[in-house]
Amino acid sequence: MDLSGPRWKGRGFAEIANSNPMSRVVLQLQTALSQSGTAAFLAGNNALLRAEPEIANLLSRAAFGREVINSGTDNQIFQLGPEEAFYLSHSLKCLKITRDSDDTPPSENELWAYLKSKNEAFPESYMAYKHLRSKNWVVKPGIQYGVDFVAYRHHPALVHSEYAVIVVREGDRNSRLSSMTDLYCTLRACGSVAKTLLKLSIRCCGVNGSMRDSPDCLEDFDVDERTITRFIPAQSREDRDLDEVAMEFGEKV
Amino acid sequence: MDLSGPRWKGRGFAEIANSNPMSRVVLQLQTALSQSGTAAFLAGNNALLRAEPEIANLLSRAAFGREVINSGTDNQIFQLGPEEAFYLSHSLKCLKITRDSDDTPPSENELWAYLKSKNEAFPESYMAYKHLRSKNWVVKPGIQYGVDFVAYRHHPALVHSEYAVIVVREGDRNSRLSSMTDLYCTLRACGSVAKTLLKLSIRCCGVNGSMRDSPDCLEDFDVDERTITRFIPAQSREDRDLDEVAMEFGEKV
Repeated sequence: MDLSGPRWKGRGFAEIANSNPMSRVVLQLQTALSQSGTAAFLAGNNALLRAEPEIANLLSRAAFGREVINSGTDNQIFQLGPEEAFYLSHSLKCLKITRDSDDTPPSENELWAYLKSKNEAFPESYMAYKHLRSKNWVVKPGIQYGVDFVAYRHHPALVHSEYAVIVVREGDRNSRLSSMTDLYCTLRACGSVAKTLLKLSIRCCGVNGSMRDSPDCLEDFDVDERTITRFIPAQSREDRDLDEVAMEFGEKV
Repeated sequence: MDLSGPRWKGRGFAEIANSNPMSRVVLQLQTALSQSGTAAFLAGNNALLRAEPEIANLLSRAAFGREVINSGTDNQIFQLGPEEAFYLSHSLKCLKITRDSDDTPPSENELWAYLKSKNEAFPESYMAYKHLRSKNWVVKPGIQYGVDFVAYRHHPALVHSEYAVIVVREGDRNSRLSSMTDLYCTLRACGSVAKTLLKLSIRCCGVNGSMRDSPDCLEDFDVDERTITRFIPAQSREDRDLDEVAMEFGEKV
């Protein structure tokens, strides 16, 4: 299967995506959320928010969160994953996050500590999410493919995800992909769903980074991007038609 | 894809397998090796042996090792993996193993230490191999599928491998399959090649087991066998024809 470039889900979808850049949709969402003063509240590892029709439409178009089934009102309930909620709150500064039981919203440090208490790898996971989202990739959970995230070139309704993303903390010798069998297994699983494996190693280069106990550590994180593919000898031969090569050697290939 | 039972590679192959039980083929190999006094010598992680035609035939039929390309003599060179070599030497007591440079064959403890120096996980890996081979499964390396071994009901020429085997040391929190993404990934990779994932956890229950520095530890090892499959709701419904159920409910399923 040819893995080069995006696999659009329908004819003309590439043009729809090109005329609606994701960066613009996210900017519209950011503006609308800021102006409306929308708040989400924490529920376990996720955040829930009640969205007016305009915001609901923008959340859908920007592919943030997922709609929770709901009837009887005009407003829709969206469930945001931890990275999504923190990205809207901390990086785009357009979403307030509260605790259900408590009127005082948690500080950024408190929110960070809460999310890290739910998932020890949250700092690296968030860094990877932020890294890809800020490059206008659409990033969604990858658990059904056995990876951390999947990355789409545009909205998942238009295009299949191109990358299966695994996030590792650099220097962690027991991380995913550190054993050969795991690596082969992951390459095979990615290949069977026509995705390229993207390994994001989060490197810490500073004192805040190693502490990881406030969002300040993000400034000390570096992201090393690496795609991993299986070697296919035929693709690595000189870029000539095989028949031509065969003719030169006087034999059929 | 139906994963229940073996997938034979051709018509009548099940009957061929039934009339040539693997236990009998291995017994013939064991007898022939013992009588001929065949020796293999260590080469890196593997062992090489020069086999007379009868032994070569039995090694092939019992699916031990692989033939190394070779011309000009009647004898054939076979390369045995570390588990295969140690199984023939230690468990079936029918193969001498020597060092190339040294006429004195290593003791069992020396051989164990040598193989363990090449692969720290050799004790558990060998225990898993021995466990399956002694139940007459044919066990081959699984690296191409991203697992430790694959297990065949009979000779790989007759049947596809049924199990993709991962060996873990019980209590090792960083072992394969300990993260959810790795588990999902492995299930997906196994599913795509129609194999059932078999996790063999090697538990140590004794003082020799925890030392792991001589083959004596094998007596203190217990093997916990667990197959892992994805839940497929349709298979878990009551064992009646779906049309029948649909008729009862007066609707199409």
